[in-house]
Amino acid sequence: MRRTIFDSDHEQFRQTVMAALERDIAPRVEAFERQGHIDRDVFVQLGELGIIGIQVPEHFGGGGQRSFKFNAVIFEASAHTRIPLGALQVHMNVVMPYFLKYSTPAQQQRWFPGLASGETLTAIAMTEPGAGSDLAGIAAAATPRGDGGYLLSGSKTFITGGYNADLVVVVARTSAEENRRSGMSLLVVEEGMTGFARGRKLSKLGLGTQDTVELFFDEVYIPPDNVLGETGAAFTLLASNLPQERLSIALSAVAMSEAALTETIAYTKGRNVFGKPLSTFQNSKFELADMGASVTAARVLVDHALEALDAGALTPADAARVKLFTTELQGRVVDRCLQLHGGYGYMREQPITRMYADARVSRIYGGSSEVMKLIISKDMGL
Amino acid sequence: MRRTIFDSDHEQFRQTVMAALERDIAPRVEAFERQGHIDRDVFVQLGELGIIGIQVPEHFGGGGQRSFKFNAVIFEASAHTRIPLGALQVHMNVVMPYFLKYSTPAQQQRWFPGLASGETLTAIAMTEPGAGSDLAGIAAAATPRGDGGYLLSGSKTFITGGYNADLVVVVARTSAEENRRSGMSLLVVEEGMTGFARGRKLSKLGLGTQDTVELFFDEVYIPPDNVLGETGAAFTLLASNLPQERLSIALSAVAMSEAALTETIAYTKGRNVFGKPLSTFQNSKFELADMGASVTAARVLVDHALEALDAGALTPADAARVKLFTTELQGRVVDRCLQLHGGYGYMREQPITRMYADARVSRIYGGSSEVMKLIISKDMGL
Amino acid sequence: MRRTIFDSDHEQFRQTVMAALERDIAPRVEAFERQGHIDRDVFVQLGELGIIGIQVPEHFGGGGQRSFKFNAVIFEASAHTRIPLGALQVHMNVVMPYFLKYSTPAQQQRWFPGLASGETLTAIAMTEPGAGSDLAGIAAAATPRGDGGYLLSGSKTFITGGYNADLVVVVARTSAEENRRSGMSLLVVEEGMTGFARGRKLSKLGLGTQDTVELFFDEVYIPPDNVLGETGAAFTLLASNLPQERLSIALSAVAMSEAALTETIAYTKGRNVFGKPLSTFQNSKFELADMGASVTAARVLVDHALEALDAGALTPADAARVKLFTTELQGRVVDRCLQLHGGYGYMREQPITRMYADARVSRIYGGSSEVMKLIISKDMGL
Amino acid sequence: MRRTIFDSDHEQFRQTVMAALERDIAPRVEAFERQGHIDRDVFVQLGELGIIGIQVPEHFGGGGQRSFKFNAVIFEASAHTRIPLGALQVHMNVVMPYFLKYSTPAQQQRWFPGLASGETLTAIAMTEPGAGSDLAGIAAAATPRGDGGYLLSGSKTFITGGYNADLVVVVARTSAEENRRSGMSLLVVEEGMTGFARGRKLSKLGLGTQDTVELFFDEVYIPPDNVLGETGAAFTLLASNLPQERLSIALSAVAMSEAALTETIAYTKGRNVFGKPLSTFQNSKFELADMGASVTAARVLVDHALEALDAGALTPADAARVKLFTTELQGRVVDRCLQLHGGYGYMREQPITRMYADARVSRIYGGSSEVMKLIISKDMGL
Repeated sequence: MRRTIFDSDHEQFRQTVMAALERDIAPRVEAFERQGHIDRDVFVQLGELGIIGIQVPEHFGGGGQRSFKFNAVIFEASAHTRIPLGALQVHMNVVMPYFLKYSTPAQQQRWFPGLASGETLTAIAMTEPGAGSDLAGIAAAATPRGDGGYLLSGSKTFITGGYNADLVVVVARTSAEENRRSGMSLLVVEEGMTGFARGRKLSKLGLGTQDTVELFFDEVYIPPDNVLGETGAAFTLLASNLPQERLSIALSAVAMSEAALTETIAYTKGRNVFGKPLSTFQNSKFELADMGASVTAARVLVDHALEALDAGALTPADAARVKLFTTELQGRVVDRCLQLHGGYGYMREQPITRMYADARVSRIYGGSSEVMKLIISKDMGL
Repeated sequence: MRRTIFDSDHEQFRQTVMAALERDIAPRVEAFERQGHIDRDVFVQLGELGIIGIQVPEHFGGGGQRSFKFNAVIFEASAHTRIPLGALQVHMNVVMPYFLKYSTPAQQQRWFPGLASGETLTAIAMTEPGAGSDLAGIAAAATPRGDGGYLLSGSKTFITGGYNADLVVVVARTSAEENRRSGMSLLVVEEGMTGFARGRKLSKLGLGTQDTVELFFDEVYIPPDNVLGETGAAFTLLASNLPQERLSIALSAVAMSEAALTETIAYTKGRNVFGKPLSTFQNSKFELADMGASVTAARVLVDHALEALDAGALTPADAARVKLFTTELQGRVVDRCLQLHGGYGYMREQPITRMYADARVSRIYGGSSEVMKLIISKDMGL
Repeated sequence: MRRTIFDSDHEQFRQTVMAALERDIAPRVEAFERQGHIDRDVFVQLGELGIIGIQVPEHFGGGGQRSFKFNAVIFEASAHTRIPLGALQVHMNVVMPYFLKYSTPAQQQRWFPGLASGETLTAIAMTEPGAGSDLAGIAAAATPRGDGGYLLSGSKTFITGGYNADLVVVVARTSAEENRRSGMSLLVVEEGMTGFARGRKLSKLGLGTQDTVELFFDEVYIPPDNVLGETGAAFTLLASNLPQERLSIALSAVAMSEAALTETIAYTKGRNVFGKPLSTFQNSKFELADMGASVTAARVLVDHALEALDAGALTPADAARVKLFTTELQGRVVDRCLQLHGGYGYMREQPITRMYADARVSRIYGGSSEVMKLIISKDMGL
Repeated sequence: MRRTIFDSDHEQFRQTVMAALERDIAPRVEAFERQGHIDRDVFVQLGELGIIGIQVPEHFGGGGQRSFKFNAVIFEASAHTRIPLGALQVHMNVVMPYFLKYSTPAQQQRWFPGLASGETLTAIAMTEPGAGSDLAGIAAAATPRGDGGYLLSGSKTFITGGYNADLVVVVARTSAEENRRSGMSLLVVEEGMTGFARGRKLSKLGLGTQDTVELFFDEVYIPPDNVLGETGAAFTLLASNLPQERLSIALSAVAMSEAALTETIAYTKGRNVFGKPLSTFQNSKFELADMGASVTAARVLVDHALEALDAGALTPADAARVKLFTTELQGRVVDRCLQLHGGYGYMREQPITRMYADARVSRIYGGSSEVMKLIISKDMGL
């Protein structure tokens, strides 16, 4: 199905991104997987190419683009080149928007040049051991100091990009109000602050290149200038970016589904079974055709949602619909594609096997499918 | 998810259609179901309102609209008012296009006024007992006469609208060529021609208002002026309208899925179980939310395809993708919605029960899901 | 997979049943569907053959069998001959057990001869308009009279066999206790009692031969001798038969799934598509093989449960597991089998089409799939 | 659902096995995963306890049991203790049977003591790079020598237990006959033979403790005494054990499904979400209940098949039905159970995450689901 949302600027940008990924990153992916994170020079390189800072205002050295379509191009390219860039995705699509929207002029001066150049990486620390996606249950607490700063204590887990991050946006309780949802603020913890420690990289089912860690805060002093956005308004600030965050996961899910199909079509054509290509069996054809039709629907859906996002019209509930539909589909697609690979599908050296392992988190992070259903049902008046 | 394809003309037209359906047809639906067809005066009324002839050129009394969006509006309204109009759909979306595209000026003079006014109804006769959707296996044969006319003999089955039709476009073999696909022509049989007989109305699982019949042709004389389009080119002519025909089924499938959701949301809110509304149980919420997300994807897909059709860019394979995805989804949606109705869901007086019975054919007619997969897999290079 | 639960007595009984169904009932099924119930002489005939009274003690003229396997044989035969006997199933597997277990000697003298001969038919009236399967919400009330009798008022709906029934076991509130679950009794209403009226036969999606009606009770006098079992203990009495009742539905679901497969295998072998039998396409093979494997699992499961029931070891939760699994499977099987029939699958004259319509209720009646899940989850300690 | 196939001997044996696994192996599993194989002393210990040699005749030091139920007990215990023993399973359930059935008296003297004691481990080498499960396409060839021996050359891949194996049964072409299926023999290659080399351990999605390797044979001399069973009859010999081999996979699939449910029930009870245990949400209950019902069906099915196997009545097609049903179910169960774990489900330290990774191969090895469907459809007469 023809796509109608990109113009020649986007396509040119896509060429730049694809070239950078294939030339500079692809050969190093295995090493990154072994060590469990991507080397920082990669991000600097993506900065030099104008990729990582595409949304940062031009006078700080960025690309100055407001449309999320450029971000979409980057992570489509990531999927299509089979180079998972999970931490970059969180940095660019989830965390950076908070800086772009809520930084004071002084903060912009301090942080935007690094965000534009790729020298400054970010992460966001919400989830706590035992608290899951229920933000109201956050225990990390920041005690006010007389100077407007805070002393932050607590621990966070499942922090994507937490190993590499220079700036960690920590969601913490800054006042002991009764309402469980208020009294939370966004505090920026910087690499090197006293009392800030990173735990081990967590061993995940997939996404080997992505550094996911635990973080510990032991009376870390947060100066007043490191509060991001309005004090006590963390929930509102976080919610403001949810549609984009979830669409970001959805568009990767779709691009990864497309990549799984491409991979599997090629595999079934090259693989002979009982004397003829696997692709010529009716079961292979029907499986791939059925998946193809659904992935087309998903592609059209995310493209439509991308237009809506750029127009400021993507509601949180619609973003939830898009995430639910696309990630559930991705789960089915990678499973069926792997099956068509037979025994090879179980070997880590096969792209489909990694895609399978990588994909499993899509239905969980950024709000699980169950959470999406809650949001959607509320929107349906239930 | 916001829709972006309709303008105020379409919305005004929608008001007209909705009003006509609710006021004039709704009260008679049960009677139509009992007798197995819709009374002809209904179509004349739809003609007077400018609905049935919306695509017929203005100088023949029609609406002169080329965009298929108006047709889409009609059959969305049909679904949303729970008034199945299967035969009208075939008449307007499947058969009329052949007349509009392939009629000679003389044929236009004869037939277009009636098509515009709703006094002339049409059907198309392809399927034969035993031959199914394999057009190459058609046995109905038309023997050439010296005058350019033919003597047509054979029988057809599953003919939607065949009881009411004034003009039946019969796909018949007009030359005994070797190539199974060529040598077929479109012949227009008219009510009253000698040798033309209609069989009983077939009893179907659902779609009770729709007259589906067998037709018999015993040496029916077809004058030269009743050949539609180029002789021997039936396959090409039929193929030309396939994208629209399949999209037509798809858009009804989506609208009927939406109607099923609306119906079920209302039912679960009004129904108390164990002392509280069924809609407040998490299972109800999750079921409806999950369906809602998928139906949203389907809605966006058909809208996108509708734009593509109007732009002449909807390929047969893309139409197959759209039909496969939306009708398979419809099947799951009506099943799950019926389940949420409990025992009431098994009673014919409930709208959901009829929707369930009506929906089952969507995955079969206009090319079954299996045929769609063959088309798609070919398009994927398999 | 070999079956191990039947011996030669059962197989001989099966011959008797199959012969009776094919010879005496099959030719009349269409007429029964048109009128919406089975003629009473059929049940008398089944009485004469020792079928209908197989569980009634011998000295009342019955077969004196205690094993439920004979009942299983009857309803397997019903499915395998495509003759739906829904009301008979409720009579024999659901209602008769209450009479057999809870009748006083005097009641036995009055009722058992008729139950043995097939001259007395029964039904049970639980569900009320608006109350669904929530027994605690029952509104039908019986006011005690000085003589130990009651005056019963209220209405019931979805009563299978309610048109033919001579004896209707009505679940009614006989004391206004606080505990919603106690204070219910089983009252036997007899044909001809003043104030007892039957409503219209409800039009259902399928199961056309089965009379399903509404019943009305307007101050019907219930003599003391017409209370079945202990007064106020309806819940306990009803619960005691639930495992058998649900297993009964499950075994029909499995037998109907087997019948659907048999039907479809035959159809695909006889039907040519693109010049070769539909059965030779890989998709047909895979669909049928996949369903076949699942139906085998279901068959083994119900046979195992049947042994457990006869041994007094089938728990309510296990019966719920069996009903849930087998009826959900049946739903998928008839849907996929119908699909393999193409356009013919939508025509009521095809056995698969009726099976499809008949099957839809299995997931709903006798406790819906949702209710089964509640029971099972409780049993899992959730 | 009560199980009826085990007696006190089996239950006592289960105690022995469970104790050994939990006490001796559990603490070392992580180390085994890191190194990619289980240390040999484990197998010797299992020999001392009478576990590994349970089927070896008593006069060679084995347990002398003929019933496969003891094997079933072992691998149920493996699943229930979450200790994957894939290579042991292949050794005991797949390869050892060939030795037990087809060894000459001389071979029994040489090999049975080691099989009984656990000092001799085995593997079977069928699959070749590029040939998959199509045995007829095997390229490994053994050229006859004058002395009745052979020179074997070729390579094999995906060989479970291939790193530890002392005896590798190699399927190789021993005569160049036209019929693709004949001319294959089973040759026993021993550790230390010249020309026999083992490749790297393959990195798999899961099953980390299981050594899966490539094997290379470069003119390995096979003495006449190392031919297992009749020369040229490899296909018949291999086919004879297929029902047991596939049932073995099926029973592990079921036991692993049970373990996944147990794990998930515990997790959802211990995990609080929005202030109450996850297990109290209706979605959790319904998910677990639905899975529980299906797993019960699978449990009854494999138990029934186990009885049939012991009775010599499990046909290859029935074994295929059992494998297809149980492994497809396992795939769905681990996926849904993982989902209920939320973010923790993606962390390798969680048992469910490993179960998910381990389970993916069940639908592939020992004949993929697609191969099972071919076998079943043939058995259905398609």
